[in-house]
Amino acid sequence: MSSFRLFAPSSRGGEEELDVLVVGAGPAGLTAALYLARYGVKTAVYAKEIGGQMAIAPLVDDYPGVPRVSGRELADRFVNHVRSYGVPIVIDELVDVRREGDRWVALFSSGRRVRCVAAILALGARKRRLGVPGEDRLLGRGVSYCAVCDGPMYAGKRVAVVGGGNSALTSALYLSSVASRVYLVHRRDSFRAMPIYVERARSDPKIEMVLRSVVTEIVGDDRVRGIKVRNVESGEERLIEVDGVFIEVGVEPPTELFRKIGIEVDEEGRAVVDKDMSTNLPGIFVAGDAAGGPKKYRFPQIITAAAEGAIAADAAWKYLQKARSGRGT
Amino acid sequence: MSSFRLFAPSSRGGEEELDVLVVGAGPAGLTAALYLARYGVKTAVYAKEIGGQMAIAPLVDDYPGVPRVSGRELADRFVNHVRSYGVPIVIDELVDVRREGDRWVALFSSGRRVRCVAAILALGARKRRLGVPGEDRLLGRGVSYCAVCDGPMYAGKRVAVVGGGNSALTSALYLSSVASRVYLVHRRDSFRAMPIYVERARSDPKIEMVLRSVVTEIVGDDRVRGIKVRNVESGEERLIEVDGVFIEVGVEPPTELFRKIGIEVDEEGRAVVDKDMSTNLPGIFVAGDAAGGPKKYRFPQIITAAAEGAIAADAAWKYLQKARSGRGT
Repeated sequence: MSSFRLFAPSSRGGEEELDVLVVGAGPAGLTAALYLARYGVKTAVYAKEIGGQMAIAPLVDDYPGVPRVSGRELADRFVNHVRSYGVPIVIDELVDVRREGDRWVALFSSGRRVRCVAAILALGARKRRLGVPGEDRLLGRGVSYCAVCDGPMYAGKRVAVVGGGNSALTSALYLSSVASRVYLVHRRDSFRAMPIYVERARSDPKIEMVLRSVVTEIVGDDRVRGIKVRNVESGEERLIEVDGVFIEVGVEPPTELFRKIGIEVDEEGRAVVDKDMSTNLPGIFVAGDAAGGPKKYRFPQIITAAAEGAIAADAAWKYLQKARSGRGT
Repeated sequence: MSSFRLFAPSSRGGEEELDVLVVGAGPAGLTAALYLARYGVKTAVYAKEIGGQMAIAPLVDDYPGVPRVSGRELADRFVNHVRSYGVPIVIDELVDVRREGDRWVALFSSGRRVRCVAAILALGARKRRLGVPGEDRLLGRGVSYCAVCDGPMYAGKRVAVVGGGNSALTSALYLSSVASRVYLVHRRDSFRAMPIYVERARSDPKIEMVLRSVVTEIVGDDRVRGIKVRNVESGEERLIEVDGVFIEVGVEPPTELFRKIGIEVDEEGRAVVDKDMSTNLPGIFVAGDAAGGPKKYRFPQIITAAAEGAIAADAAWKYLQKARSGRGT
């Protein structure tokens, strides 16, 4: 947590002028800032918190070249890398982005205004919580929101996956190649997932479907020991003993904020981006988990979020070149 | 160079059976292998050499979280990360991929055959060499093929960019924000680049156009000291003193091999890929510098190549699920 002390909240009010504003300090935002700084572009990172979803991962072993670190440690390394280029990182929460003349103006909860030619919004998307007892307390101690990230820790163990969409089904399938037993707990008895995944899961001897059922509690003292599951028809409740619970009940991208700004969103509430991470608003880019739409292959990992940040920075730099020639808006 | 000793060339002949074959050991191939191993997929990496273009970079400072390392060192870290999952890395050169029944069979120069359900070809794309005296000798000592990667080392210095396409123009524009002077040396007096970049470069006071001119030699003892430039009309030759030379005269993707295999290529000879890195051949994926086509934003960096490797691995895993259900081919 050491790096937190380095960041002061922005002073109340005040106005700053940047070439490219970066909002968000997860892997996408921090990588965008790194590239912009290397391009000699005047930039700064504004973020509600440091590290994004990366920072809450207990163990990251899928960021190539950096084996087995905590998400907190990896976030610190990203932050220090960005800071080595002298880029300010300011703790503040974005509340709106508006057009004023030939600039965008970002408004923050402190009252601060940042004027910029372009902005990269790397706001992330929080995984939706189940909202049951034990969930927050056992996060990182058996409770996970990413099977691909944390699955390898459950070799030969019993796990549960909660949810009924593509993410839940692929998580269950993936975990069945690692764990000894996978319970797939879903509120309905039909799935909102690709039929191929449903068929594969139904025929997988390691996967046991627990349908028409909801998790009412995650139990365990210092580690997950099991889940309490209630059948929604019979009302019957039982304990399933597991070592890990993977929760895949949807995501919460900053849809309302995108709508307020005027950024087009997809059916899951993510910003619709082109292959260069540009949105329907010229000069506004979205990278990382908050970016979606039909042109993007959605695979929310640190490495993919970071790459999108780099791409957004390159595209924003090109946008700056046009804007300076008086051709952009 | 320590890791090289760990890799034996494959024995002559022999046949291996894999779920997903990875060919290429640059950032794309190694990341693909890392993800496949974590998915519990039977995989191996076959490569002509380790590290790809990454390994020849003198200093890498744009891979987020790993500041200021040599490309060789970063390549070693990727390799060790992959090897921590027990994935074999074999030195051998791909010569063809053919369909045999319900499998792909990859043929290597040693005579080895690898049967697989899917393959990720991360073969890279070598930057085209100028082919002049001094170029190879001073590589990494003033000669570079990537302005975005190596540009920051030339703050306040004089540099030359050789070429006339988008890569040459954007390299010159980027370097003008870092270096004190940028000579743009181009064989013709018109450019194959976006007009906006040409206009910006022409009006940039730091950029001096050296047109209808070719570089005949890169001079310097242990570091670049200048370039010899000959005007193709007058034949007149002169020395331009520079500290760095950025060569952007095109790339050499493995086009002939792609054509032989039957993979569709774009106008630059790269494999045409969809957003999941799939090609026109079901089960054959291409990631990294060798991948192109209209759906990809081309920004050839370590971080973007690695992300493409992760995406290809995820897509190949999904392809495997279908193939195992008897729905794939």
